[in-house]
Amino acid sequence: MQIIHRFSISSRLVYQMHQKGWLLLNIAVIRADNQRVLKETLTNSAGLPFNEQTGPDGVTRFHGLASETGLLEILYEAEVERVIHLEEESYPTPEVTLVDLPGAVTPFLYPSRYCESDKLMRFAAKQFGGMMPGHERVAGVCNWIYSNIDYLPGATDEHTSAVDCLTLRAGVCRDFAHLGVALCRALGIPARYGSAYAFGLIPPDYHAFFEVWLGNRWWYYDATRLAPQHGFIQVGRGHDAADTSVATMSGGVQFQTMEIAVNKLTPALVDHANGPVSFFEPPNS
Amino acid sequence: MQIIHRFSISSRLVYQMHQKGWLLLNIAVIRADNQRVLKETLTNSAGLPFNEQTGPDGVTRFHGLASETGLLEILYEAEVERVIHLEEESYPTPEVTLVDLPGAVTPFLYPSRYCESDKLMRFAAKQFGGMMPGHERVAGVCNWIYSNIDYLPGATDEHTSAVDCLTLRAGVCRDFAHLGVALCRALGIPARYGSAYAFGLIPPDYHAFFEVWLGNRWWYYDATRLAPQHGFIQVGRGHDAADTSVATMSGGVQFQTMEIAVNKLTPALVDHANGPVSFFEPPNS
Amino acid sequence: MQIIHRFSISSRLVYQMHQKGWLLLNIAVIRADNQRVLKETLTNSAGLPFNEQTGPDGVTRFHGLASETGLLEILYEAEVERVIHLEEESYPTPEVTLVDLPGAVTPFLYPSRYCESDKLMRFAAKQFGGMMPGHERVAGVCNWIYSNIDYLPGATDEHTSAVDCLTLRAGVCRDFAHLGVALCRALGIPARYGSAYAFGLIPPDYHAFFEVWLGNRWWYYDATRLAPQHGFIQVGRGHDAADTSVATMSGGVQFQTMEIAVNKLTPALVDHANGPVSFFEPPNS
Amino acid sequence: MQIIHRFSISSRLVYQMHQKGWLLLNIAVIRADNQRVLKETLTNSAGLPFNEQTGPDGVTRFHGLASETGLLEILYEAEVERVIHLEEESYPTPEVTLVDLPGAVTPFLYPSRYCESDKLMRFAAKQFGGMMPGHERVAGVCNWIYSNIDYLPGATDEHTSAVDCLTLRAGVCRDFAHLGVALCRALGIPARYGSAYAFGLIPPDYHAFFEVWLGNRWWYYDATRLAPQHGFIQVGRGHDAADTSVATMSGGVQFQTMEIAVNKLTPALVDHANGPVSFFEPPNS
Repeated sequence: MQIIHRFSISSRLVYQMHQKGWLLLNIAVIRADNQRVLKETLTNSAGLPFNEQTGPDGVTRFHGLASETGLLEILYEAEVERVIHLEEESYPTPEVTLVDLPGAVTPFLYPSRYCESDKLMRFAAKQFGGMMPGHERVAGVCNWIYSNIDYLPGATDEHTSAVDCLTLRAGVCRDFAHLGVALCRALGIPARYGSAYAFGLIPPDYHAFFEVWLGNRWWYYDATRLAPQHGFIQVGRGHDAADTSVATMSGGVQFQTMEIAVNKLTPALVDHANGPVSFFEPPNS
Repeated sequence: MQIIHRFSISSRLVYQMHQKGWLLLNIAVIRADNQRVLKETLTNSAGLPFNEQTGPDGVTRFHGLASETGLLEILYEAEVERVIHLEEESYPTPEVTLVDLPGAVTPFLYPSRYCESDKLMRFAAKQFGGMMPGHERVAGVCNWIYSNIDYLPGATDEHTSAVDCLTLRAGVCRDFAHLGVALCRALGIPARYGSAYAFGLIPPDYHAFFEVWLGNRWWYYDATRLAPQHGFIQVGRGHDAADTSVATMSGGVQFQTMEIAVNKLTPALVDHANGPVSFFEPPNS
Repeated sequence: MQIIHRFSISSRLVYQMHQKGWLLLNIAVIRADNQRVLKETLTNSAGLPFNEQTGPDGVTRFHGLASETGLLEILYEAEVERVIHLEEESYPTPEVTLVDLPGAVTPFLYPSRYCESDKLMRFAAKQFGGMMPGHERVAGVCNWIYSNIDYLPGATDEHTSAVDCLTLRAGVCRDFAHLGVALCRALGIPARYGSAYAFGLIPPDYHAFFEVWLGNRWWYYDATRLAPQHGFIQVGRGHDAADTSVATMSGGVQFQTMEIAVNKLTPALVDHANGPVSFFEPPNS
Repeated sequence: MQIIHRFSISSRLVYQMHQKGWLLLNIAVIRADNQRVLKETLTNSAGLPFNEQTGPDGVTRFHGLASETGLLEILYEAEVERVIHLEEESYPTPEVTLVDLPGAVTPFLYPSRYCESDKLMRFAAKQFGGMMPGHERVAGVCNWIYSNIDYLPGATDEHTSAVDCLTLRAGVCRDFAHLGVALCRALGIPARYGSAYAFGLIPPDYHAFFEVWLGNRWWYYDATRLAPQHGFIQVGRGHDAADTSVATMSGGVQFQTMEIAVNKLTPALVDHANGPVSFFEPPNS
């Protein structure tokens, strides 16, 4: 059984080019079983060609653009069907031993720029080591973060890491996701960072959450509880925020403003109604 | 024209399993045009099966192993032909703009656990920004590291990053490679970390160097000057040392000892002798 | 021979007390041979009593204040004579060995919160070790900071340390002073942090500089070159900015605004005219 | 009523002087009401003169020494009476507001090199904010450290700070003391670091603990529980370990070995027997 939500997305970014510059954008949504792109346009005010590429996972999408001086406006608009597979039969989803992980998943066990899991082994073991392996333990990580870290815009910046956030006990969605990733990795559970458009997020912005490998797939988790997970439409995924910047810039580019809107187009469509929505659900990719 | 060196490699690792444990080894060499594996054996004292996988690049090789208690000895032996392509015609090798990089290369622009390039933008621009882009600038980075960082075993540990090394002005090959990677990324040049068996390295050990994307390929660089680059037989590659651990361990595993030997089997074979060996050379993969 | 400058100082601080709170202010100038307080008033809008204390050096002045809710305005006004002793005979001012330092000076050799000299020993020795000990070497430190660190408001925050500033290559006067202190200590030269009203500083603000022990006294240094040293009227001194906060707060206190003005009251008075002004000068305390 | 313990102390330090060097030792015990020095000798194998000084607190003692090349052995021997004042009447010992602290105590509210209390405000408030102010809260800090940090020689080094220790969840007595100091300061309670000879410590070594200002005096606390507090004979005190190095070295000095012994000379003398020993007790200085 599936529940299907339909969303419209709009992201408008404005840059000032002081001289020739390059932009690599990660703003177009991933195409996957759990999010079907119905319509999509990407345009810019200077009529420049976009160079589309996929990241090393073959799924995330990057759009490159070279521009001369002037104001540059970029507009991304899409309609997306978000598909929630109700798979209660998938419980329990066990943790997988080091040796049985797929080769493409293993690297998400290792520490990354903003997720220094190597420093958190002892803390993670003390705090979460006694919990039931699998979903229960990851949910325990989320609950702990939600209860112990203050969501506080302005408390952190673009250099802030999971260890910094754990020390300061404050952060934003990016920091909550980094800490979730770092703690899971410290427990031996592969975890990666996700960025998304999120229906219901106030104020509208790119959201960050994290994905965890349990059983034989990735599952979504979000320790912020700021928006419903069925309204996440994923844009980026990677080791951490370093891999999923909205825009990587080079040359004379300066960010000006950003406007994001996510709207629900229709009521949810339910194919078959006799099952509860799973607390967490797989991105199916 | 090519010069071919033939090496024998032997790596013996001993672990104590206090209880059931898992090991994921990155000790088998990469198979590529520039290093042809002639013979290879991987065995362990308990006769356990190895689970071979490749990393997300499809090239690096990992061997998983689950073991009960006891002493566990792992032996890797190989004979490898190391092929040096003399490609002086490839000069100059320009830096590539953000937008023109292949999607699989772009992530190596981003900061990683041990290579916090995001913090080094200003330093890198001041120190190396005026140099000729391309090989000259990367060579400038290597020379600067060689001249300003003391090679000092014991000065750093497994948590030490490029920024730490730059502050302390001391480190080992791992730190030299991390700093090289971080500085190149801060300059907008994709760079990744490499681990290798290295002929001529004293004392014998796994060596670390780094690779840089110039023109349309990766090139080897090593700021330590501890061993000749034609004697590098690559084992791992990744964002930094986090991706290339000799062994990732889980459960009751404790490292005991390691012995490495790399020997030259024959004099170098030269296919055609009328060209100089390039200062740096591509791994061709 | 002396040159005397006369300055008026005004500092107006406004706080919002959300509930009962405590403030410990370090805004009144030090009384010393090189800065004579002619007039001085300290008042607050609520008519609350100030509890005046001196710091552990017996010289810096702190004013405590307990307040109920409401807006609280604090006004400090002073007229000060700044006395520049022209002591060219004091050259050279040698560095002093560890054993010959006064007991009250020795602690300024040790690392402090924002001046992690313990991590900079190797860098300091490499960069400044070959310079002539004494003033020449400290001036070399100042020149190096001025040339290699960008003065960039907003690049750093209240947690930023000397090592952070050295990594980022950017900061404000506080960071420049911390780096100067840290590098001198790493060279074995006692150094402390100073805060001051500074004539000619634009925009008007509390300024930070540093003091170095050479020969048998402290000397002023400032790597920012933002204001003339004869216009510094010192307020705080200590290991680093941690010891010299304008205001330490507790309870329901929130900072609102600050206004500072420093004006020259008369032309400089010169007692005797036959000597050059020394490049650096002692605070005489 | 008092209980008096009598201890003999012996500390033997050996250094290799590769060339002329300077040593500043902090190995002689503090003279105070709670520790009376009965006998004391300080000698060195080269018959060099010691230059005795006191630190800025006027109480801690430093011995300077300049030496030419060769092996240098330093021997400190003392007999000390440790006086425990049983002052149960002093309960409760309240925390003191910012404004009512003596000027010499206030600086121990501020962060220092190894005690970055500025980063721990939020954590301290969350974890300990609800506890009864005063001794109960400080005891809560000690208990939390004891329960959450592993005492693990080798896990940390001389650069490790309180924040590092809190992240890694491991450390030695120095780290436990730093964390205790940092957490108390983050709660607005003045705290300083103490070093001591400690009867009963196994293996014998310089011990670290911390002191907290409650009511109108400093009180001893130790989160390690490794030795009885009545057996602490204090040597150093300061902001953190930076102020209390056993030896600060300059020039060609290299540490070789150290031997420490603390023995109880007589059974405890009890002046008057009708009171319990207080859990914590003031150093009376």
